[in-house]
Amino acid sequence: MELRAKILVVGGGAIGGLVAWRLSINHNLSVSVVCRSNYDAISRHGYRISSALYGEGTYIPESVFASVEQAQSAGPYDYVVVALKALPNIYDCPSLIAPVISANTMIVLMQNGIGIEASFAERFPEAPLASTACFVSVKQTSPGHLKHGAFAMLAAGMHDGFRTRPNIRKLQQLLRILEHNQVNCLYEHDVQPYRWQKHILNGSTNPVSVVCGGSSCQEMVRNDHCCKLLQELMAEIFVLGKAVTGKAFPGVDGIVDPQSATDYIKSIPVPVYTSMLVDSQCKRPMELEVILKNPILLAEKHNVDVPNMKAMYALLSMIEAGYSK
Amino acid sequence: MELRAKILVVGGGAIGGLVAWRLSINHNLSVSVVCRSNYDAISRHGYRISSALYGEGTYIPESVFASVEQAQSAGPYDYVVVALKALPNIYDCPSLIAPVISANTMIVLMQNGIGIEASFAERFPEAPLASTACFVSVKQTSPGHLKHGAFAMLAAGMHDGFRTRPNIRKLQQLLRILEHNQVNCLYEHDVQPYRWQKHILNGSTNPVSVVCGGSSCQEMVRNDHCCKLLQELMAEIFVLGKAVTGKAFPGVDGIVDPQSATDYIKSIPVPVYTSMLVDSQCKRPMELEVILKNPILLAEKHNVDVPNMKAMYALLSMIEAGYSK
Repeated sequence: MELRAKILVVGGGAIGGLVAWRLSINHNLSVSVVCRSNYDAISRHGYRISSALYGEGTYIPESVFASVEQAQSAGPYDYVVVALKALPNIYDCPSLIAPVISANTMIVLMQNGIGIEASFAERFPEAPLASTACFVSVKQTSPGHLKHGAFAMLAAGMHDGFRTRPNIRKLQQLLRILEHNQVNCLYEHDVQPYRWQKHILNGSTNPVSVVCGGSSCQEMVRNDHCCKLLQELMAEIFVLGKAVTGKAFPGVDGIVDPQSATDYIKSIPVPVYTSMLVDSQCKRPMELEVILKNPILLAEKHNVDVPNMKAMYALLSMIEAGYSK
Repeated sequence: MELRAKILVVGGGAIGGLVAWRLSINHNLSVSVVCRSNYDAISRHGYRISSALYGEGTYIPESVFASVEQAQSAGPYDYVVVALKALPNIYDCPSLIAPVISANTMIVLMQNGIGIEASFAERFPEAPLASTACFVSVKQTSPGHLKHGAFAMLAAGMHDGFRTRPNIRKLQQLLRILEHNQVNCLYEHDVQPYRWQKHILNGSTNPVSVVCGGSSCQEMVRNDHCCKLLQELMAEIFVLGKAVTGKAFPGVDGIVDPQSATDYIKSIPVPVYTSMLVDSQCKRPMELEVILKNPILLAEKHNVDVPNMKAMYALLSMIEAGYSK
């Protein structure tokens, strides 16, 4: 690993914290983290990580910043990893990271949902843009405490229009370091089929969990009617994703259709609660735009029928609007 | 009004209490009520009714019974009005009223939902069976306290197979008494189109109100996405109801399509909260079977596509199953 590089991870939550930790194991890298809600905890004690794959660990980032502006003077950065929640209706991620982006900064998106790339590509036509689909089960149980499962895989590729040979090489260097530190990495020419693959579970279990009364994913699939509803949503995602990407999905975890997807959920031994459920219970904004609204807009464009997605979007937007009640 | 008759109202909630009150104004009738959850309040103090149409009133029923068995010895009854919640998965209404039904007893159903008649017709092939659609906005705000709006209309007809001339005459006698006491009554040869007409609002606003975070009907139609969802559900009900009844709906309140239905909701000046929402908040069983499950079964029989109904049924059955959490 010869790469000497400066990396800033914006968003020090579960994914951001875990990725920063894995990267920081390489001593040639300078890895800093911008934390927001957990800034106090991380700047004092760092992360305490309990992982089935990596064991117990403590991670004190080289620098912890309370804002991107604070991180600016320590730049320039070779890579800026964006691990913030994708909430375009609440804040504009490109504006937020603008202070640390130069033409030599590679932006690496580690966010869920569909249609997250466009606003970055528009705002930073020069800065190379990479997108990833993170198949990682990790949550922050309290500020600075991460609980990670047995699995960490990342599919990454340069976004449309940024696939030059130097950009691809630069992304692959980052992936090689992660790979070396036990994060399975796939370089993909077009990462969108992976993003849609991940969306099969994300876009179905997330919304349904909120409106069905707070159940775990396993409880949802055990109820025949609810399982059917999840499968209907998944079917919409399969059809839409193939229409949008023009490609078959890669079948991660053997998920190739709605049946195998719910079978997969059934097979997970520990109860899984979705992030959207946790957000709704804490009355935090949910990732409605990138989980539901963007796919619905794409469905209209591609003439795909998505009645269940629309129903879920209607219900969740009502629930979010009612937080103040 | 020459009819001398003995009437038992089974279920002394909002609808049962109001109907018993209107009937009791006729001194030739003996009207008794079977109360369950509000038995103590009614047997001590009767009903206190606040009505925009009828003014303030107090109503002490001739007899109040704590069970149908208790009411049996005071029989036989010429009419048994069934105003219980329709919860076939929780209790069997025909079994419940069996002690007070003879071949001369007319059963008059005043319950919401679709497909409520079959189990009565099967259980009592001799007793004439009438079905009604009640367009009455009345709620029990606390045990024995009824709040009623400005409107009371009832469409009633004999059920299939019971349309003999004597039965029709007997039903019409009851309707004439209610009419005399300011309840608008329509005798209908086939009441099913009226039941479906009522179901347009019932079958849409009830389920959505539960899963969208506890909003009033007006709040739901003011949110564009939620309004669209309600209209999609209404469209399913319009199409299905016409397929099942083979007839056009009567257009009560000018509701002839989803747009006029949501316009109607918008026009109601006081916030309306659905009964299903109240039930879910109190963790009481909801009328899922007659509001959603029976229509879904009919949709399968008639090859009508009802994705939104199915989604709502899945979510509400999960919520009900989670009451014990």
